[in-house]
Amino acid sequence: MRRLPDRVWRLPRQEDDEAADEGIGRILALSDGVFAIAITLLILEIAVPATTTDDGLPKALLGLWPRYLAYVVGFVVIARFWVIHRLAFRLIARDDAVLVWLNLLLLLFVAFLPFPTTVLGEHNGAPAAAVLHAASVILASLASAAYWWYASGPGGLLRPGVGRAQIRALRARSLSGPVSFALTLPIALFAPYVAEILWIFVFPLTRMVFIWFFADEPEQPG
Amino acid sequence: MRRLPDRVWRLPRQEDDEAADEGIGRILALSDGVFAIAITLLILEIAVPATTTDDGLPKALLGLWPRYLAYVVGFVVIARFWVIHRLAFRLIARDDAVLVWLNLLLLLFVAFLPFPTTVLGEHNGAPAAAVLHAASVILASLASAAYWWYASGPGGLLRPGVGRAQIRALRARSLSGPVSFALTLPIALFAPYVAEILWIFVFPLTRMVFIWFFADEPEQPG
Amino acid sequence: MRRLPDRVWRLPRQEDDEAADEGIGRILALSDGVFAIAITLLILEIAVPATTTDDGLPKALLGLWPRYLAYVVGFVVIARFWVIHRLAFRLIARDDAVLVWLNLLLLLFVAFLPFPTTVLGEHNGAPAAAVLHAASVILASLASAAYWWYASGPGGLLRPGVGRAQIRALRARSLSGPVSFALTLPIALFAPYVAEILWIFVFPLTRMVFIWFFADEPEQPG
Amino acid sequence: MRRLPDRVWRLPRQEDDEAADEGIGRILALSDGVFAIAITLLILEIAVPATTTDDGLPKALLGLWPRYLAYVVGFVVIARFWVIHRLAFRLIARDDAVLVWLNLLLLLFVAFLPFPTTVLGEHNGAPAAAVLHAASVILASLASAAYWWYASGPGGLLRPGVGRAQIRALRARSLSGPVSFALTLPIALFAPYVAEILWIFVFPLTRMVFIWFFADEPEQPG
Repeated sequence: MRRLPDRVWRLPRQEDDEAADEGIGRILALSDGVFAIAITLLILEIAVPATTTDDGLPKALLGLWPRYLAYVVGFVVIARFWVIHRLAFRLIARDDAVLVWLNLLLLLFVAFLPFPTTVLGEHNGAPAAAVLHAASVILASLASAAYWWYASGPGGLLRPGVGRAQIRALRARSLSGPVSFALTLPIALFAPYVAEILWIFVFPLTRMVFIWFFADEPEQPG
Repeated sequence: MRRLPDRVWRLPRQEDDEAADEGIGRILALSDGVFAIAITLLILEIAVPATTTDDGLPKALLGLWPRYLAYVVGFVVIARFWVIHRLAFRLIARDDAVLVWLNLLLLLFVAFLPFPTTVLGEHNGAPAAAVLHAASVILASLASAAYWWYASGPGGLLRPGVGRAQIRALRARSLSGPVSFALTLPIALFAPYVAEILWIFVFPLTRMVFIWFFADEPEQPG
Repeated sequence: MRRLPDRVWRLPRQEDDEAADEGIGRILALSDGVFAIAITLLILEIAVPATTTDDGLPKALLGLWPRYLAYVVGFVVIARFWVIHRLAFRLIARDDAVLVWLNLLLLLFVAFLPFPTTVLGEHNGAPAAAVLHAASVILASLASAAYWWYASGPGGLLRPGVGRAQIRALRARSLSGPVSFALTLPIALFAPYVAEILWIFVFPLTRMVFIWFFADEPEQPG
Repeated sequence: MRRLPDRVWRLPRQEDDEAADEGIGRILALSDGVFAIAITLLILEIAVPATTTDDGLPKALLGLWPRYLAYVVGFVVIARFWVIHRLAFRLIARDDAVLVWLNLLLLLFVAFLPFPTTVLGEHNGAPAAAVLHAASVILASLASAAYWWYASGPGGLLRPGVGRAQIRALRARSLSGPVSFALTLPIALFAPYVAEILWIFVFPLTRMVFIWFFADEPEQPG
């Protein structure tokens, strides 16, 4: 029954494959747009106070360093969701309404990330800022894991010939994000800067998890 | 006479099909861009007051909940217009000047939506905010219905082989949006939060309308 | 000599055609991005004063009407540049460094338009606002005419088989914009709202100019 | 070992080429999005003070000239990175994880550029503003040089048949940017406007460097 409405959009048979590409194409166009804007809006939150004099400018610029750090953290976090999104959608061949809305759920949280990033830059010593940021990233990570779990599992939307090792590796990578952020939350409460530095390095860490899972099983031939 | 100027842009015959794709392609590129930006700009309206201290941050963050709710409502509303746009343009094969300008009319209202969404987040108890938001969504829905009505009717721009059931179903879905918002307007005047929750669930509702219309008629083979 | 550096980017012969498409593709991607953002940023300038109470909201919303008018003018003006851009680039087959930079000059002025549009909305009775807006549109129109003049003339970048009537018609349309805005400038100085309404209708006017030029000459077969 | 994880994403052989195109396609989509937004956000920093009266508007508009100048400098600088990016990616056939992250490093600095451009417009006489701007451009230029150096060198990601002269010319052009900005830094400290004018003309200068390098060696046939 969940699949029923999708049947309506079926195009005449001979155009089906082309139409599938087109459908995925617009999902990627909207997603790349949201990723690009969310990543670029971060800079709007960095500003020198309007009352700064020319003489006070060097000090004011240096005093903004917590915002520069938050900018880099925010950029790396959003970029990472994009990198995983690109890898996952290379393996997805078709879409349905559930995938479209799970992907929109991810975009809802990705487009939200500039807000906690800003709060982190403005209130760099406040535990609440660290908790808000970590919670937002965890929600986005869960949405990221959800669309991949659906496409590779019940949805059955992958290209033919995608090995089980690849599917498991990308699942592990999706989940390593929320797990890492949950683990660093206690650190963020007491030493927010340490947590921010750790967050920048979550990427290499999850990459290692990913390689480890992959190595766990012999590669499937195409 | 309305079609006259379009003749000017006709390319040499053998390149016509490819050029049609290209023309649609840029309409979709601009549209996806506007959807992506409108959906991402919503977050710029959520901000902690500049005077918030680190100690006051948890309370300030919790106090922003009407804005989080408005963010989700605004996101779901714009996402829904995009979902319908994607389904409709999968069935549209060619464009003409009327379609281009009706689509721009839709984008005019979609790009406007961040404003009523912001007012809704700031003045969550004010009837005027609910009326402004509902009226904006109704205008956008009418524009959405207009381009589909034109393309599937007088414009004759659909791919060959699109069944009448599909056309009717998408017309019903386009119109179910404004009708639902008009129906909830009285609720919004007295209980704005109840109306906002209802707006989030307009989507599943219109989906049911859509299935109901579709089931009304035997499916057309491709 | 102007063409010399372009030679460097020549790909091996057999890939030339595909590469030409790809090169144009990214020019269009950047352009559509800038058009979409410029058109969507206009809404950021509409805001209810932060001191507005819930009771004062209806009056505050109605009092913003000069900004709604400026929003529509700004949207229609930018949309028109996009429509002409789309029509022109359907006829352009190849690019070179001069076209790239003339197109960037257009984007420089298009991305500038949100500023005069905002000033127009805030200072709706001030002649300086009208002059700034008209001057900005004239500059953008000149850049729009420049890339088309170059591509269809000295650059020789059009697809084979584009008729002289099409080239002349698009030249006339490019120039009708600046001419109309220059003509309405005296009106804008004394009756800014009348000028704004006229600006919204410049499009149908230039369309008529365009049809008239086209009708001036027999159509060229492909 | 660096290449190990990439193996995981290998698609079944027969789809490899198509998938390579698709992978590059999304890198370009995200990049064009970030370039378009960064270039368009610059205008948000130009605003007439809210207290300006209609009578004071002409003077206020003229008084903004340092911001107009900064806008043009910011636009030309970002446009230049885009032009080089487009030329470079016409020659790049495949991607790997290192290229993806070096490109993201470039986007990190490109998305940062609106901030130093704003500071330059607001504090036009302050040496610190000039130093910040030049330093940001130099960092972005280094990232731009890094991805090209990697793709054309150790990464081995270029299309077959790209001549050594083309590779060297683009390397020279990448590096001419940071060198020019480093050279003008002393001027910026004492005469910021002179430096800004010079920055606008860095492009023709680096183009000459590029032609000179190219001419240094006989052209490689495809």
